[in-house]
Amino acid sequence: MFLFCFRTRRGSILSKLHIWFLFFVAVKAVSVNGVWPMPQKISSFVERYSVTPQTFTFQYTPGSVAQPGCSVLDAAFKRYFKLIFPDLLRQPGESYYVRPLASPFTVQVGVSEGNCDGYPSESSKESYRLSVSSGLAAVSAETVWGALRGLESLSQLVYQDDFGVYYINKTEIEDFPRFAFRGLLLDTSRHYLPLNAILETLDAMSYTKLNVFHWHIVDDPSFPYQSKFFPDLSNKGAFHPMTHVYTQGDVRRVIEHARLRGIRVVPEFDSPGHTQSWGRGQPDLLTPCYRGDVPSGTFGPVNPILSSSYQFMAKLFKEVTSVFPDSYLHLGGDEVNFNCWKSNPDVRAFMKTMGFGSDFSRLEAFYVEHMVNISTALNRTSIVWQDVFDYHEKIPKDTVLEIWKGLPPAYAQEMSHMTKAGYRVLLSAPWYINHIRYGQDWRDSYTVKPLNFSGTEEQKKLVIGGEVCMWGEYVDATNLSPRLWPRACAAAERLWSDEDQTSSADKAFPRLTDFRCRLLRRGIRAEPLFVGHCEQEFQGL
Amino acid sequence: MFLFCFRTRRGSILSKLHIWFLFFVAVKAVSVNGVWPMPQKISSFVERYSVTPQTFTFQYTPGSVAQPGCSVLDAAFKRYFKLIFPDLLRQPGESYYVRPLASPFTVQVGVSEGNCDGYPSESSKESYRLSVSSGLAAVSAETVWGALRGLESLSQLVYQDDFGVYYINKTEIEDFPRFAFRGLLLDTSRHYLPLNAILETLDAMSYTKLNVFHWHIVDDPSFPYQSKFFPDLSNKGAFHPMTHVYTQGDVRRVIEHARLRGIRVVPEFDSPGHTQSWGRGQPDLLTPCYRGDVPSGTFGPVNPILSSSYQFMAKLFKEVTSVFPDSYLHLGGDEVNFNCWKSNPDVRAFMKTMGFGSDFSRLEAFYVEHMVNISTALNRTSIVWQDVFDYHEKIPKDTVLEIWKGLPPAYAQEMSHMTKAGYRVLLSAPWYINHIRYGQDWRDSYTVKPLNFSGTEEQKKLVIGGEVCMWGEYVDATNLSPRLWPRACAAAERLWSDEDQTSSADKAFPRLTDFRCRLLRRGIRAEPLFVGHCEQEFQGL
Repeated sequence: MFLFCFRTRRGSILSKLHIWFLFFVAVKAVSVNGVWPMPQKISSFVERYSVTPQTFTFQYTPGSVAQPGCSVLDAAFKRYFKLIFPDLLRQPGESYYVRPLASPFTVQVGVSEGNCDGYPSESSKESYRLSVSSGLAAVSAETVWGALRGLESLSQLVYQDDFGVYYINKTEIEDFPRFAFRGLLLDTSRHYLPLNAILETLDAMSYTKLNVFHWHIVDDPSFPYQSKFFPDLSNKGAFHPMTHVYTQGDVRRVIEHARLRGIRVVPEFDSPGHTQSWGRGQPDLLTPCYRGDVPSGTFGPVNPILSSSYQFMAKLFKEVTSVFPDSYLHLGGDEVNFNCWKSNPDVRAFMKTMGFGSDFSRLEAFYVEHMVNISTALNRTSIVWQDVFDYHEKIPKDTVLEIWKGLPPAYAQEMSHMTKAGYRVLLSAPWYINHIRYGQDWRDSYTVKPLNFSGTEEQKKLVIGGEVCMWGEYVDATNLSPRLWPRACAAAERLWSDEDQTSSADKAFPRLTDFRCRLLRRGIRAEPLFVGHCEQEFQGL
Repeated sequence: MFLFCFRTRRGSILSKLHIWFLFFVAVKAVSVNGVWPMPQKISSFVERYSVTPQTFTFQYTPGSVAQPGCSVLDAAFKRYFKLIFPDLLRQPGESYYVRPLASPFTVQVGVSEGNCDGYPSESSKESYRLSVSSGLAAVSAETVWGALRGLESLSQLVYQDDFGVYYINKTEIEDFPRFAFRGLLLDTSRHYLPLNAILETLDAMSYTKLNVFHWHIVDDPSFPYQSKFFPDLSNKGAFHPMTHVYTQGDVRRVIEHARLRGIRVVPEFDSPGHTQSWGRGQPDLLTPCYRGDVPSGTFGPVNPILSSSYQFMAKLFKEVTSVFPDSYLHLGGDEVNFNCWKSNPDVRAFMKTMGFGSDFSRLEAFYVEHMVNISTALNRTSIVWQDVFDYHEKIPKDTVLEIWKGLPPAYAQEMSHMTKAGYRVLLSAPWYINHIRYGQDWRDSYTVKPLNFSGTEEQKKLVIGGEVCMWGEYVDATNLSPRLWPRACAAAERLWSDEDQTSSADKAFPRLTDFRCRLLRRGIRAEPLFVGHCEQEFQGL
């Protein structure tokens, strides 16, 4: 029996002798270790067990706090059975190989906390242990969310040989995420994304252990969120009031689909900029711009000088927080253009009254402070884009700042400043994967070092994670999946795995190539990394 | 009745008064002129006729040479009926609006040549006239291929109002292509493309009037063409000998699908380079490379010093020309690396015998000359990549040269040289649309001026057209459609339409945006050009 382990953070535990065995085993059974993202600690053995759908079952560990009836795990068992045996999805008439003398294989799942009806949160423990031995895979975790991560890893350990027989190797995994917040942003305003596209994205997120869906649901071009209190926002602000909206039922479906996969849904209602579509259904919300002494007929950001604006936002956010259970709320706050405010005589008069001089960023800070207060009163942690920190360093300390600007030196400096000021930070600047370029641009995402900035250990701990952003200027349901996958997997591994074990994009390449074929097999239209093929190709529509 | 016309090559025929009418009409009925690529001459009127599937029929003009039984047009009538009325494809249960008193509308199609069972060729006339009046659309053309182009334009004239009623406006079109050769290259070697992906591409090509499918069918990574004479080429050279191959039946299906759409299929069997996959199934075909005095175990281009190589190629091309009816055959000839030839002592000895000195491009020329002779003997016009001209200016004058290298000044110079030497030229350098970049890169393709090189009128006439190339390094069926469409439409308009009428990408933008929605409606996964929406979005899988 040949043991091989990946290097831990502290260095190799392998003797030179073992390294030769490792080489041999790795060549013989390359697909055995195809867990993406790379677990913190994995030991794989050449001993392997054949498994077949006829005798493969999921059970709760006898001592587990969660037992049958646990919504999250019941659904996961069903789901992962299909993911482990994708051949069952073949057309009727096609057969698959059945082992005549198959011995039973049981997946036992146990958790020590039984919150099956709750939602994953910022403090959810996602660590798990997975032990695969003869006839048994044991997944143990503190929480059901950790158990989900273990089931995902388990599902990736199963592979088929050339005869179609399914195998799993003896394996020991001890795993936990590097960062608690591993997000993916979809923009449903620049293009409307049909519900299916969002649900499929959540599926693929769970395959790569991303755990926060940042729903940039509205913006300048359209307002597809169908509000209970303000139905005109989508009636007049959506691309179409019936076909291009998310109903309350749609939103619930997204949240539940995400919950069952251990994914948080953090909505963003960006203001005061990026709100052109809001103005169509909410008269007087936006600032009227002036040309000289007369209104030009165009509108700018939310009007920050009217109390009605704040009343509206408070009521909208009250609704939003009743719909979205997550404790985080994204308030936006980016890219506010001051020209319209400057042009408006009432705004200028207000500036004078408030003693803001000609510094419109103080007006912006004034507005955002109100928003953060509304959010806090609703018991939410606010996330804002970095712009808010850049113009207003005194926002409440429990606000989370999201960095989206610049290249490595620039965002590293920003991280340094923000964490020095004591703020928690989310990094998305290097993961704007809507920016495409020819070639293997996943490598750019992969080689990011999120903690490579000057700061103390305490400062580093303030980096709660990062986000892959897929802005919608050039993306809708026609190209979303192949642009997201497998490119987003690179950031997913960076945010989950140990950086020392996963520093080489070249070493990651064959693993990601395999994982991409697995995504295809699961129905995700993941594009190729480079020349080659998958056993089962995407067959078109 | 307000008349508006597009500017002809000779200048505006509109008075200032008419321009105001034009503006009014254009605003009122923007979708009326959505024919892509822009016809050479189109007059649209505000008079419009409602049409409905209940009373919409296709007929042959009484005097037409083609009559019922004409395979190309019979199939086209059936196809265009569905394309004109896509609502008929809706799920059962969904209804569409039916006009209570619909009057009949007949499309009459007449041609003066009746070659319904033939193949489109380099000399096929694609011009047509289309006249839409009350109850009647008359399409007249010399050939069935021209009639197909007319039917395509007709299908794009039909639009729906907000109530779902279908309309077509009174219209006169006189149209013909600027270039006879308007190609699209797919690479099925770097990734295998399932048959469906190829057939769908042919569908979309016909919507945008591209008329040559350049099938780069084999290359280094894989040999998916299942040869009758040499089955080992795909048995050993394909990614998989059963699932990743094109059988003879598959190839016939592609050719027939293309024929019915007026599309030529030009196969490329690129040699002597780009042949690594050939070597697996055809021992001794490739040159053994040497490290010092011993073979290194690797192989280079086709071995040009063995008569067996030429015998093999002659037999393969004999088969290929029996399978592919088009009079053109692409011989490749690009990117030949001389290192392996240089390393091989037998090749060096052959060079000495032949008096080639140390100029290996003379050896390459020697090889390509043989290929061109084989092709000529098989009654084919050879196409070769520009490299062949670059190293060997004396190839037969009826060879077509395809330019793929460089940016505007470079390829323009190459066109100038080649046409000066009397060769026919195909331009693909500016249309390598596998090269993606963030943003509206279709504009780069659109603003190409193929005849903007220094040369006489006679030289310009030698430019027979161009090709959009979708090389397969990063492309398979997961992302092919959204990368091709609508980006390839830009080149399609450049190759079909009058350059003076279509010089502005800004003016093309709304037309292409509309056309992209039409492609979506027809089931083509065409990606968005920019922020916005289509009435019917792609719904995902």
